[in-house]
Amino acid sequence: MKQKQFIFFIAIQFFSGVCFAQTEKAVVEDFKPSSTNQPGREYPQVNSEGRVRVRIFAPEAQRVQLDISAVKYDLVKDTGGYWMGESAPQDEGFHYYQLWIDGAAVPDPNSLYFYGASRWGSGIEVPAKDQDFYSLKNVPHGQVRQHLYFSKTNNTIRRCYVYTPPDYDKDVNKRYPVLYLQHGGGEDETGWSNQGKVNLIMDNLIAEAKAVPFIIVMDNGTWTWPEGVPRPKPGERPSGPWPPKGWADNFMKTLLNDIIPMIDANYRTLSDSKNRAMAGLSMGGMQTRIITLAHPDVFSYVGVFSGGSFTVEDLNNNPAFKEKIKLVFIGYGSRELEDRRFNFGGDPKENTEAIKKAGMNAHFYVSQNTAHEWQTWRRSFFQFAQLVFKNN
Amino acid sequence: MKQKQFIFFIAIQFFSGVCFAQTEKAVVEDFKPSSTNQPGREYPQVNSEGRVRVRIFAPEAQRVQLDISAVKYDLVKDTGGYWMGESAPQDEGFHYYQLWIDGAAVPDPNSLYFYGASRWGSGIEVPAKDQDFYSLKNVPHGQVRQHLYFSKTNNTIRRCYVYTPPDYDKDVNKRYPVLYLQHGGGEDETGWSNQGKVNLIMDNLIAEAKAVPFIIVMDNGTWTWPEGVPRPKPGERPSGPWPPKGWADNFMKTLLNDIIPMIDANYRTLSDSKNRAMAGLSMGGMQTRIITLAHPDVFSYVGVFSGGSFTVEDLNNNPAFKEKIKLVFIGYGSRELEDRRFNFGGDPKENTEAIKKAGMNAHFYVSQNTAHEWQTWRRSFFQFAQLVFKNN
Repeated sequence: MKQKQFIFFIAIQFFSGVCFAQTEKAVVEDFKPSSTNQPGREYPQVNSEGRVRVRIFAPEAQRVQLDISAVKYDLVKDTGGYWMGESAPQDEGFHYYQLWIDGAAVPDPNSLYFYGASRWGSGIEVPAKDQDFYSLKNVPHGQVRQHLYFSKTNNTIRRCYVYTPPDYDKDVNKRYPVLYLQHGGGEDETGWSNQGKVNLIMDNLIAEAKAVPFIIVMDNGTWTWPEGVPRPKPGERPSGPWPPKGWADNFMKTLLNDIIPMIDANYRTLSDSKNRAMAGLSMGGMQTRIITLAHPDVFSYVGVFSGGSFTVEDLNNNPAFKEKIKLVFIGYGSRELEDRRFNFGGDPKENTEAIKKAGMNAHFYVSQNTAHEWQTWRRSFFQFAQLVFKNN
Repeated sequence: MKQKQFIFFIAIQFFSGVCFAQTEKAVVEDFKPSSTNQPGREYPQVNSEGRVRVRIFAPEAQRVQLDISAVKYDLVKDTGGYWMGESAPQDEGFHYYQLWIDGAAVPDPNSLYFYGASRWGSGIEVPAKDQDFYSLKNVPHGQVRQHLYFSKTNNTIRRCYVYTPPDYDKDVNKRYPVLYLQHGGGEDETGWSNQGKVNLIMDNLIAEAKAVPFIIVMDNGTWTWPEGVPRPKPGERPSGPWPPKGWADNFMKTLLNDIIPMIDANYRTLSDSKNRAMAGLSMGGMQTRIITLAHPDVFSYVGVFSGGSFTVEDLNNNPAFKEKIKLVFIGYGSRELEDRRFNFGGDPKENTEAIKKAGMNAHFYVSQNTAHEWQTWRRSFFQFAQLVFKNN
């Protein structure tokens, strides 16, 4: 089957002179509907190589493309008006994607939708060898609660999501540590539960007694241009540092003055700093770094996933951080480590080894064969959740 | 302004011979971005007449249409590749819609997405004169909790959403009545909170002491073909009754054997039948009627919104229903009452008046100028919530 297809590609290449087949391998025909499809939908599908195949009815369209991992793939129209085609093999885990129909970028009407890249759009799950840790299993489940609250800092009603562990409503005398867990740029407070499956990861860890049960608070860390900082004119590149000085200030105030007191008032928390952690991915990791360096009296455990690292200079400038923080966890995808864009503030592995030598309880984790994507962050969280609140 | 546009339309009609302007009135140019837009999006917009205007970049498309309330409107392309156009005035409230791009039906990439018509797709909010009752206000807010649980009836893990009132976590000795609230056909357990805004309606009612605080359970009532009933062949019209006999049996079993015991075990409920209600919209109303007639010992309050009514014959066949049920509430949109398709089992107003004469505490409510849509169901719920659990 594979060989026949390969010969067919060679033939096309020879007779037509096109070269699209040159780098193509035979596609393995074992595609299955994705777990992120809308109920009852046959497409999109994923095969054992991790190729994503989409199909859409667009009888009058001239050109339809699948756009995934920053590459556009032309689809082919059949006689019935359906366009179909597939991508190159994708890394394991979750990927955002979209379709282009005659120049219009739209969500695939067959997929579930997720907030990322500053839009609600299509996402697809490529089955992973280690997917067991975030699978839905018949174990006791925690809840994910939508919580609306008034924020004085922003003079508005905000929304956060709160994970409470399985037994939260059973023993009403028990109190729990709290992790404040932040999404990345262009994402929002829905990301960690929808794309990250953080509730399932926790349910599974707690069922196996591998994690201390804790509450997780997921709020919106999106920043707007800070007041008092000169703003670049439209179309101009910013002349100052990027992101601009003070970009994380508003969320820091919101977290310290509104979110944490609101959570401690409404949930059965252990409200001392020993029982409070902060972590985040990408932009949320940078916020975690800035906020925990500025307020090491408020948090005791720190996780930064694909969002930079801490240096010995950080410790020297912030002795209280070195003294009080009980755990620093830095996670990265192996493909990110080859890409200087993600080494915010120096090589994260070297930095983490250096602060460990300087006496901190520091962990460096690498997710194999994943990039700046959710599989890296699911795995990083999975590791972090097994370490946090354990040396209280 | 209006007059000028009108003259312009007449002129077009005269010179070009096209008749599209014949039934068009001048469009009032006071469009504003909709509250259901994705963050930061300028379109879609709604004007004071309730017209919906959409805009999408599709430079190579040949034809783009807005499809709302079962009518397709052609959009017009500008020189920059953007297509724009607007619908006729829509009823107040929430409407599902989609775009057609060269024959492909897709969600509008600028709107939030909602599950209805058996798909995740675009929805838009047309501001209503009475929107205050479902507006987000600075009052104490309840939570909407995603709850995963194992169902023995279906041998699978299911998801429901549970609204807990504002003070639920404050006084851990207080117990609450429970309403089981069902969505319509092609919708799911997300409908009542996303489209229905049932949590905000309750928060506002409780803040004004107009409703008894109660828990609301929203589960998935979608039915599949019942076992043992002959199935029509693909393409054939079913010869038996529609929906087929037994269509509600699986959900009835799931509700009685799995959902209610799970809720009573995990939430601080008042678990006697006096403190249990069931209501639903459209298909969910039909389920409510079937389930409460069969089990009047389990529920005491019944709401059916755009889903049929109870007859004197029902009471004669089910004397326990007449004896035990404390309230029957039937709600309809005024536009539905003119449409025989929605009078499942006879004229709902006459039926309700007849069971009232027969001695039941029966209420008939009409939502003015709304059809088989969410504004009818928000208003019906708002009325029902003020009556339920009050004569315990």
